[in-house]
Amino acid sequence: MSALASRLAEAADLVTVALDELLPRADGPEARLTEAMRYAALGPGKRLRPFFAIETGKMFDLDDRPVLRAACALECIQAYSLIHDDLPCMDDDDMRRGRPTVHKAYDEMTAVLAGDALQTVAFEILAHPDTHADGAVRAQMVLRLAQASGARGMCGGQMIDMLGVRDDLGAVARMQRMKTGALIACAFELPLVMAHMDEDDREHHALMAFAQDLGLAYQIVDDLLDLEGDAAELGKKAGKDAAMGKANYVTLLGAEAARERLNLLKEQTKAHLDPFGPRAEFLRAAVDFVLERRN
Amino acid sequence: MSALASRLAEAADLVTVALDELLPRADGPEARLTEAMRYAALGPGKRLRPFFAIETGKMFDLDDRPVLRAACALECIQAYSLIHDDLPCMDDDDMRRGRPTVHKAYDEMTAVLAGDALQTVAFEILAHPDTHADGAVRAQMVLRLAQASGARGMCGGQMIDMLGVRDDLGAVARMQRMKTGALIACAFELPLVMAHMDEDDREHHALMAFAQDLGLAYQIVDDLLDLEGDAAELGKKAGKDAAMGKANYVTLLGAEAARERLNLLKEQTKAHLDPFGPRAEFLRAAVDFVLERRN
Repeated sequence: MSALASRLAEAADLVTVALDELLPRADGPEARLTEAMRYAALGPGKRLRPFFAIETGKMFDLDDRPVLRAACALECIQAYSLIHDDLPCMDDDDMRRGRPTVHKAYDEMTAVLAGDALQTVAFEILAHPDTHADGAVRAQMVLRLAQASGARGMCGGQMIDMLGVRDDLGAVARMQRMKTGALIACAFELPLVMAHMDEDDREHHALMAFAQDLGLAYQIVDDLLDLEGDAAELGKKAGKDAAMGKANYVTLLGAEAARERLNLLKEQTKAHLDPFGPRAEFLRAAVDFVLERRN
Repeated sequence: MSALASRLAEAADLVTVALDELLPRADGPEARLTEAMRYAALGPGKRLRPFFAIETGKMFDLDDRPVLRAACALECIQAYSLIHDDLPCMDDDDMRRGRPTVHKAYDEMTAVLAGDALQTVAFEILAHPDTHADGAVRAQMVLRLAQASGARGMCGGQMIDMLGVRDDLGAVARMQRMKTGALIACAFELPLVMAHMDEDDREHHALMAFAQDLGLAYQIVDDLLDLEGDAAELGKKAGKDAAMGKANYVTLLGAEAARERLNLLKEQTKAHLDPFGPRAEFLRAAVDFVLERRN
């Protein structure tokens, strides 16, 4: 196992164990709801956003515990969005990460509610005094996560995606920045808030630029996998955009040009990490991981 | 117009104007989403929870602006929950407050996303520095709202309601406390947080007892209206619980006994307000309003 792979696995394990504690137990007459929340959030997953948060926390020598809780909040938002995106009225997907989606394993009603309650728990975790001693830091993290995941972020991006409003690369790029880019950026922002860094800080600026390019690279890979990927390896349906006649980076650029762009992006993305020197070793390695992933 | 009626109307107007400013504009390629959010949150409604928050704020001489923002956050949660409850996979309602429900006026996908983003915006509002100068107060309000609306509150209550787990009055009461009681109580709690009151405070305790009885009375009236109400006056379908064979206060107690219980509750609920003297005049009047409402 590479050094990065074990670092990723370690972060994923930490987050899974912490989430298991933070999520409500599956008891009481509402147990079906809490069970579905746990099914979605504790199941297999790369836990990339938590990993980004944890690595950023290490770069700034933050305490492990607060960063881990913020990482769990990010994963709850990610899990909620996947449950709702998979619903019959959205992408109508039966499989996710190699298992039945929540509305298949349970039912639609439970899936809607489990997504709702996972969103709620994300903010509950961030706002809790155990996450950080400084209330202003907690509130700022809530604000950032809400901005990243709301109508001007993830939710709005999903709306644009569903509407198929993307005639050109500009529209595709805007959609991607909202739908997936904002939450990826937030994974770096939450630890920056804990490190009391703001937008005027050079390191803040560098990490946000890194996050933006990384998010773009992530999406291009996604679009390539949607075209060329194998459903078994992906753990979900492939070829969805093409089947629905939706434009994405690969349909607009062509696979060859998309791959070239990825190659350029790889070095550009890593270059944003120069100010951090060896502290950013694993984030640098993560760029390769993101670009070479098969699912 | 009675003094209470004009006070209610004034609060409703304030909240509608403030929400109109706080909600994202209906522009950009995601305009369908933000338009649906505005349709749901700015449409007609009693705005009872905001009214409770505003009245509580007045009792404690809090600044208007922070309380109004907290009231808006409560209304966003209320609006989100109604959108999702009305979905075909839940209550499958076509009408709400005399207008088509969001999935009827738009479509299911937009309804899911509009509910999601209205939940997000509630936390965004509370966490924003404009809501309160003290970050710890903001974070505490986020925490309280999340607890009231999540798996152990509103969402969990909706799950129990959907599953029909309510064989006896105890189960019905638990469901009601979670599904509707928790958010009603939260309307009083958010201003209490701003007033730096905690659970050990006598006035905190009195208001929470008031909220609990008021929530119970509200639900019994709801169940009576479901049995006897007129769909045109209600602005939504009547007789739903009976049609689905679901137990509620009225099916379990009988209409006569439910009305008797309401009469007892009326004085008991108001008595919790004794410590506040004339400051609680409008909350006292609101008890009569809640008990005598026809929709």
